Amino acid sequence: MEPIGRHRWAIAEGFIPSWSNGPEPQLKSHETACILNAGDRDAHVQITIFFSDRDAAGPYRITVPARKTRHVRFNDLKEPAPIPTGIDFSSVIESDVPIVVQHTRLDSRQEANALLSTIAYAASE
Amino acid sequence: MEPIGRHRWAIAEGFIPSWSNGPEPQLKSHETACILNAGDRDAHVQITIFFSDRDAAGPYRITVPARKTRHVRFNDLKEPAPIPTGIDFSSVIESDVPIVVQHTRLDSRQEANALLSTIAYAASE
Amino acid sequence: MEPIGRHRWAIAEGFIPSWSNGPEPQLKSHETACILNAGDRDAHVQITIFFSDRDAAGPYRITVPARKTRHVRFNDLKEPAPIPTGIDFSSVIESDVPIVVQHTRLDSRQEANALLSTIAYAASE
Amino acid sequence: MEPIGRHRWAIAEGFIPSWSNGPEPQLKSHETACILNAGDRDAHVQITIFFSDRDAAGPYRITVPARKTRHVRFNDLKEPAPIPTGIDFSSVIESDVPIVVQHTRLDSRQEANALLSTIAYAASE
Repeated sequence: MEPIGRHRWAIAEGFIPSWSNGPEPQLKSHETACILNAGDRDAHVQITIFFSDRDAAGPYRITVPARKTRHVRFNDLKEPAPIPTGIDFSSVIESDVPIVVQHTRLDSRQEANALLSTIAYAASE
Repeated sequence: MEPIGRHRWAIAEGFIPSWSNGPEPQLKSHETACILNAGDRDAHVQITIFFSDRDAAGPYRITVPARKTRHVRFNDLKEPAPIPTGIDFSSVIESDVPIVVQHTRLDSRQEANALLSTIAYAASE
Repeated sequence: MEPIGRHRWAIAEGFIPSWSNGPEPQLKSHETACILNAGDRDAHVQITIFFSDRDAAGPYRITVPARKTRHVRFNDLKEPAPIPTGIDFSSVIESDVPIVVQHTRLDSRQEANALLSTIAYAASE
Repeated sequence: MEPIGRHRWAIAEGFIPSWSNGPEPQLKSHETACILNAGDRDAHVQITIFFSDRDAAGPYRITVPARKTRHVRFNDLKEPAPIPTGIDFSSVIESDVPIVVQHTRLDSRQEANALLSTIAYAASE
């Protein structure tokens, strides 16, 4: 399929809730960057994390194979360092081929879960 | 009315919850691509589904008549094959006339329902 | 202030829940088009509603004064005809000056309310 | 890092819920503009608030340091005047360097919290 998307994306909102309520792993609180690579070449992706009170972290490196999707949970990023829970952050996602990025959170800190989602910001090219 | 929209769209997030809680069909968990065709010609739409661990599926073919909307539940797509519940996917939506696409989920797995919605990504033309 | 926005917008998702749960009017289920007119001239806005199974309705006419916002509840649109609850629709919003449109729903059909919001689709100019 | 974003943004939806339910400060109802400044120069940001029934307020002045994020709670804006709770507003966010803006609300007025989020509207340049 013809590629779709852009090379550089940003998610200004970011927050990993510190606790959960409900059966895991499905209803564990999580913060996700959903990445689609619809083209025929693998995407080599770098994620940089920005905070309000400390230096930026990363890059976190991820491969999204050709014609595949990866729903990356920020909770699962471990190298070079895990992202702390309960604090504000933002992220920039950069790829060597066009990708599409969407931001989703499941927050299950109270009795019923809450969801948010938005398309990320796509930089002009 | 003058057409509005684009020919190619992508939704990077996709997930059909495996269970529900509440009166059906209104509160059955569902994942929806809302498609508007405001123009005067019928839209012939193809949806391709991308997964993290298997080959892409589709195309699923849908017609959105002129000056009509269709809120397509991914749960209802049956040909060429139903989309499995409980796993991550993404979608690309292609049309022969301009359309507008918005992504909405109702998740009623816990006692109260949760909602998310976002405009899809519109490819440049 | 220098105007910001576009002249033509679309919201592909639309649905007015048929019932509510919680103190009114704050927690009555509602579907809203939030319209910002940051410029120095009044905005004369027309909303057209598209359905899946019947002819389009409207235009509904609204004025958003200069340097003001209006959060228009679709429930409150009465002329030329109220919008039925419990069925799918889409909308196109057209203005004679630049505006910004965002779509928000509060769904209080179950014990806790659910929220969704997204920027609408802005037509190229 | 190369800057990402735009200089002028708008959020058409705005509303600070009047009450909360749950442990503070994490689950206090709030309305947030998440601002990312990924570039190497500090961002001097001005926020103007528009209402439906009174004159616009502001500008509220905020600095987002280079390579940092700030998740600005509208509840916390005090100068030149606090924003009233329980009424509709919109906002325009202007910066001297490129930024990315995302709008998020946590509404905990009922027993379980609800979330919404969307990318803000980025003015063309």
